[in-house]
Amino acid sequence: MDHPYRVDCLQYANWSEKIFRQMREGGVDGVHVTIAYHENFRETVLNVEQWNRWFERYPDLIFQGRTGADVRLARETGRTAVFFGFQNPSPIEDDIGLVEICHTLGARFMQLSYNNQSLLATGCYEAEDPGITRMGRQVIKEMNRVGLVVDMSHSAERSTLEAIEISERPIAITHANPGFWHPALRNKSDDVLRALGQSGGMLGFSVYPHHLKGKSDCTLESFCQMIAQTAELMGVGNIGIGTDLCQDQPDSVVEWMRTGRWTKEIDYGEGTAAAAGFPPMPTWFGDNRDFGKIEGGLHAVGFDAPEVAAIMGGNWLRFYDNSFGPAGPDS
Amino acid sequence: MDHPYRVDCLQYANWSEKIFRQMREGGVDGVHVTIAYHENFRETVLNVEQWNRWFERYPDLIFQGRTGADVRLARETGRTAVFFGFQNPSPIEDDIGLVEICHTLGARFMQLSYNNQSLLATGCYEAEDPGITRMGRQVIKEMNRVGLVVDMSHSAERSTLEAIEISERPIAITHANPGFWHPALRNKSDDVLRALGQSGGMLGFSVYPHHLKGKSDCTLESFCQMIAQTAELMGVGNIGIGTDLCQDQPDSVVEWMRTGRWTKEIDYGEGTAAAAGFPPMPTWFGDNRDFGKIEGGLHAVGFDAPEVAAIMGGNWLRFYDNSFGPAGPDS
Repeated sequence: MDHPYRVDCLQYANWSEKIFRQMREGGVDGVHVTIAYHENFRETVLNVEQWNRWFERYPDLIFQGRTGADVRLARETGRTAVFFGFQNPSPIEDDIGLVEICHTLGARFMQLSYNNQSLLATGCYEAEDPGITRMGRQVIKEMNRVGLVVDMSHSAERSTLEAIEISERPIAITHANPGFWHPALRNKSDDVLRALGQSGGMLGFSVYPHHLKGKSDCTLESFCQMIAQTAELMGVGNIGIGTDLCQDQPDSVVEWMRTGRWTKEIDYGEGTAAAAGFPPMPTWFGDNRDFGKIEGGLHAVGFDAPEVAAIMGGNWLRFYDNSFGPAGPDS
Repeated sequence: MDHPYRVDCLQYANWSEKIFRQMREGGVDGVHVTIAYHENFRETVLNVEQWNRWFERYPDLIFQGRTGADVRLARETGRTAVFFGFQNPSPIEDDIGLVEICHTLGARFMQLSYNNQSLLATGCYEAEDPGITRMGRQVIKEMNRVGLVVDMSHSAERSTLEAIEISERPIAITHANPGFWHPALRNKSDDVLRALGQSGGMLGFSVYPHHLKGKSDCTLESFCQMIAQTAELMGVGNIGIGTDLCQDQPDSVVEWMRTGRWTKEIDYGEGTAAAAGFPPMPTWFGDNRDFGKIEGGLHAVGFDAPEVAAIMGGNWLRFYDNSFGPAGPDS
């Protein structure tokens, strides 16, 4: 390969051999995939089982990633290392003991909340954000111990700032963009981004249209200029890609994401009644084959080769190396 | 029987034939029993199964209560009607559809939170109380629809006031005392008690020592004078008994109540490291045979016979009549 490591720190595709092959075409060495939105522990295990079947069936294309070294192994063997993560703490239910169990099963990222209040933290759609709860403080400590990364992508402001402060290891916002560029509820304030960068945490830039300035019409240039601005704010070593690609998903899936089992009514989340489904992707990023375009866009706005390599995968790889095992003296 | 209806709106004993017989000796017509502290849905169903075995084995002493009429039937047939309730919304997990399922299985009270933040509301041990969550608003509506009573005994102040306001039907605080008498975290402010009374809700007075002025040394006279003061604050029609009797429980149970599965550390809750277990009960209330003493104490502080009857069971009976089925035109 003649391109730097490529790591996408969030996808939730309707997985298929076609997409696994597109990841190979796009040179994706590592991908963090969501295996739980609102699933409880048992349902999450079913999703692990489904991935086990895919790993069994497509060993030449994919395998389960557990450490940063697996990203290197993927590159060496021409495959994609797949890392599991949760967008909600629902898989641990109300049981702190499930943190270690989930890590053993391969979970490497867990959001402390999705859009709503969880047992641990507050989601960005709640009217009030009281910060990290009593159980949240205990669970962060346990996540730090085993090497399950705190992800605050969907969390509210105060909860996110407190998670950065309480966590003894750097946290991640795997898929979101800066609010200064596109002030969506899901995008992040300068305060959050600065604190994230200063603490050694990582931001993954999202290509999900609701997070983009101009939504589906957003240009690659605007996206890459936003990355350049964010690099100034939080450091070029603390940013990467987290596309939030939901390829080939039916609209029923976005309804599940938004409403789970918490309401009998429809909640449109980032959408509207008139546009309830998945929005169309921007022209320059339709699927995994388009990572080269982002790489080109980063060069075009002035990043040099080492910087582009860091943003496209090097930063996530370093973060994976430091984050996925028990806390060591250097981590 | 020559005494008024006796309804105890909260017990969590280590149930046995001995205690069922003591309930008969004490003339307890109806009792609300906790069947879930931190149990998830499946575990709660196991607890229902356990009760089904007791109902099968002791049909001359107890039966499952589902409506206010069952309290009258209990009186007529010399038995105790047993009503199920949850001290935490853990049995509905993250699934609003389980509200109706739990009601069908017999649940009649559900606390929106125990001591910690839940998916619905905030517990009294959290540092911050943001009020009722998005899911909480949906669940209250569903509880109102099916006739599952909102119980805020362990909830924090703002969440409680919001629950009173949001709920379209009167709510209950099944077991707590006024903070003006004994300012424990679990006891309630004048604001909460006034709002509860004005909305037609009910307070059940607790005999659990941590809720009593002077704890285990509290006198019956002090307890009954407190009831008289509370009647002035919120109306004699809105108060009853909810002893929180935890008879014959080993101290391991109070540890489960306090720590559930949310922490790996010990949390002493209302206790302390030096006094971690259940505190000794006051001399005048050791078990179900002592309800007559409370009745006598109420007379002694000046309540007349109809008032004593209302407090000992009549008020809860009216509340049960109005609360346990679908909302009607008069409820």
